[in-house]
Amino acid sequence: MEVLQVLHMNKGNGETSYAKNSTVQSKILSTAKSVIEEAIQGTLCENIPESMGIADLGCSSGPNSLLVISDIMDIIHEKCHKMGRPSPEFRVSLNDLPGNDFNSIFESLPAFFRKLKQEKGAGLGRCFISGVAGSFYDRLFPNKSMHFVHSSSSLHWLSQVPSVLESNATRALNKGKIYISKSSPQCVLDAYSAQFQNDFSLFLKSRAEEMVSAGGRMVLSFMGRKSIDPTSDESCYQWELLAHALMSMVAEGLIEEEKVDSFNAPYYAPCPEEVKLEIQREGSFMVDRIEAFEIDWDGGEVEDDVIVNKAFVALSRGQRVAQTIRAVVESMLEHHFGKNIINDLFQRYADLVEDHLSKNNTKYVNLVISLVKNNS
Amino acid sequence: MEVLQVLHMNKGNGETSYAKNSTVQSKILSTAKSVIEEAIQGTLCENIPESMGIADLGCSSGPNSLLVISDIMDIIHEKCHKMGRPSPEFRVSLNDLPGNDFNSIFESLPAFFRKLKQEKGAGLGRCFISGVAGSFYDRLFPNKSMHFVHSSSSLHWLSQVPSVLESNATRALNKGKIYISKSSPQCVLDAYSAQFQNDFSLFLKSRAEEMVSAGGRMVLSFMGRKSIDPTSDESCYQWELLAHALMSMVAEGLIEEEKVDSFNAPYYAPCPEEVKLEIQREGSFMVDRIEAFEIDWDGGEVEDDVIVNKAFVALSRGQRVAQTIRAVVESMLEHHFGKNIINDLFQRYADLVEDHLSKNNTKYVNLVISLVKNNS
Repeated sequence: MEVLQVLHMNKGNGETSYAKNSTVQSKILSTAKSVIEEAIQGTLCENIPESMGIADLGCSSGPNSLLVISDIMDIIHEKCHKMGRPSPEFRVSLNDLPGNDFNSIFESLPAFFRKLKQEKGAGLGRCFISGVAGSFYDRLFPNKSMHFVHSSSSLHWLSQVPSVLESNATRALNKGKIYISKSSPQCVLDAYSAQFQNDFSLFLKSRAEEMVSAGGRMVLSFMGRKSIDPTSDESCYQWELLAHALMSMVAEGLIEEEKVDSFNAPYYAPCPEEVKLEIQREGSFMVDRIEAFEIDWDGGEVEDDVIVNKAFVALSRGQRVAQTIRAVVESMLEHHFGKNIINDLFQRYADLVEDHLSKNNTKYVNLVISLVKNNS
Repeated sequence: MEVLQVLHMNKGNGETSYAKNSTVQSKILSTAKSVIEEAIQGTLCENIPESMGIADLGCSSGPNSLLVISDIMDIIHEKCHKMGRPSPEFRVSLNDLPGNDFNSIFESLPAFFRKLKQEKGAGLGRCFISGVAGSFYDRLFPNKSMHFVHSSSSLHWLSQVPSVLESNATRALNKGKIYISKSSPQCVLDAYSAQFQNDFSLFLKSRAEEMVSAGGRMVLSFMGRKSIDPTSDESCYQWELLAHALMSMVAEGLIEEEKVDSFNAPYYAPCPEEVKLEIQREGSFMVDRIEAFEIDWDGGEVEDDVIVNKAFVALSRGQRVAQTIRAVVESMLEHHFGKNIINDLFQRYADLVEDHLSKNNTKYVNLVISLVKNNS
């Protein structure tokens, strides 16, 4: 599977769209806000540039895409205001894979700019927003052009399924599972960990070339785990239940078993130690702060200031979790299993999740990392 | 009508899409190629920057969008190669209105980059392509960030219908017509000309702020006329026939006459003198070269190296012209007249064009202008 070509959040604005089912990601954004604020303060301490490059990697589409940018610009604007300085020109780059629904982001820009002008007036620096389609495991932006890079709910996606799991000879290595599971052999765990190390290192190297040396900072937030055990429920169990749902369809002859055996998610939820080790090994950045937050599978209680889809809130917990996961992984599952099984699969998944959450309070762990570029 | 929100080329890849019906625009591109080449030589004579900002304004979607960029990069690459210099880092911005189909451009990028790598190998500088959605009658890019700006088949679109024609009191000023016509009163001609002057001046002012001073150049190519008479057939007659087609539907009760009276195209085809005058008056640029090429309504004979849609070539001339115009103006007509009349309208239009071309060899005039930024 070519992740670059296949992975994208569900497009448009319909019931199963990412735009309508990204409450969890929005919650994650609000959790990371104080870390973003601190990092930007750090960037601006060094100096306030005339023109400031800001990137959001894995911007997706829907309400979250411009929310982060608006938050970041607010923080910079306020900080400059307090210092009695004009805010800089903002060069904002929104990045995601080529299959992302950039059209819907672009269509919402005129309203976004109108609102910005109304709320901030003339004091805000000019803001230029561009879309950049490509993998963040490769170069995306010109040399030394970025001052602040943000990425939320994206870096847990690997550039590819670990190749040993893709090769025909070993396709059934992870039998009946679609991600690391307690029943996975050690070689599967190792393959996933190695792929993460390789990808994350490429990510850091690419960003290092793109970022300015003085004060360049990144805030990265993605799914991870607190435990050093890669088979811990907090990092795997959402996939475990999806595998159960798939296998129940295998049992009924609706999916071939071989299809499940040959599917593995291009995903990895690392622990803080693994992340820190890779940052150290790669050498371009220094860790300023790393935190692990627990997040309810359905996003939990939603604060008033977070954008909410009311129909989403009215669903059962199991359905909310299923909708959230569906909006993110449908493109991949459809590519591998075909369109026809999707509705049935996510109905089964919703039931399994509902049942699980009634007995266990499994939560996601979201890592938030603030990085400073080393002088080079 | 909000041109910013409404105007876009027909999306996707279907029979009536712009992607499949842009042979005329592709012909125009190839006509302007030598002018582009000369302008780039001029830019590089001053100095070869390490990082070169290139923009295509009104990039649309389909085969033409990346073709220009590829041509421009080729020219720069060759020139650098001859001088024994490495080619610069390319910062390419593709601009169009927010309703443009950027998704389809982005989806074609992986294949574009693969081809580039195959054909040019390691010698070509890194290329970063971004999409920028917005009106080119306003600022689009950061200060002094662009070295070469190109725009083809776009600047004949005004930012709005001249406001005097939009006001209720004077809606029927241009009775039975949808653009300047021999029967239009002088005030209609004046309103169009004033709107062009205003828009073109805003365009030049915005670009001047965005372009580097040393060697910054633009090549602009758009519909115009040779004659100083704004009612000349070469600049109006395609609209005249479209008005005839609409009025034939009015006669049959399929469209209300008031609907036709209140529609005017946000379009203007200037003569070289008007363009030069406005450039002089605005003051940021100097005209290096200005040429007027005649183009057949259906694009004429198509050379082998131009991307061709075979189904398009197989159509009658009238149908080819109708498809070409439809792919460009359908979004606006649909917004004003509704979806239902479109097929019928363009069938009538095709017949009128077929008939007209059997008696008259009316051609479009395409102006190509090469501009150098004045030192400031």
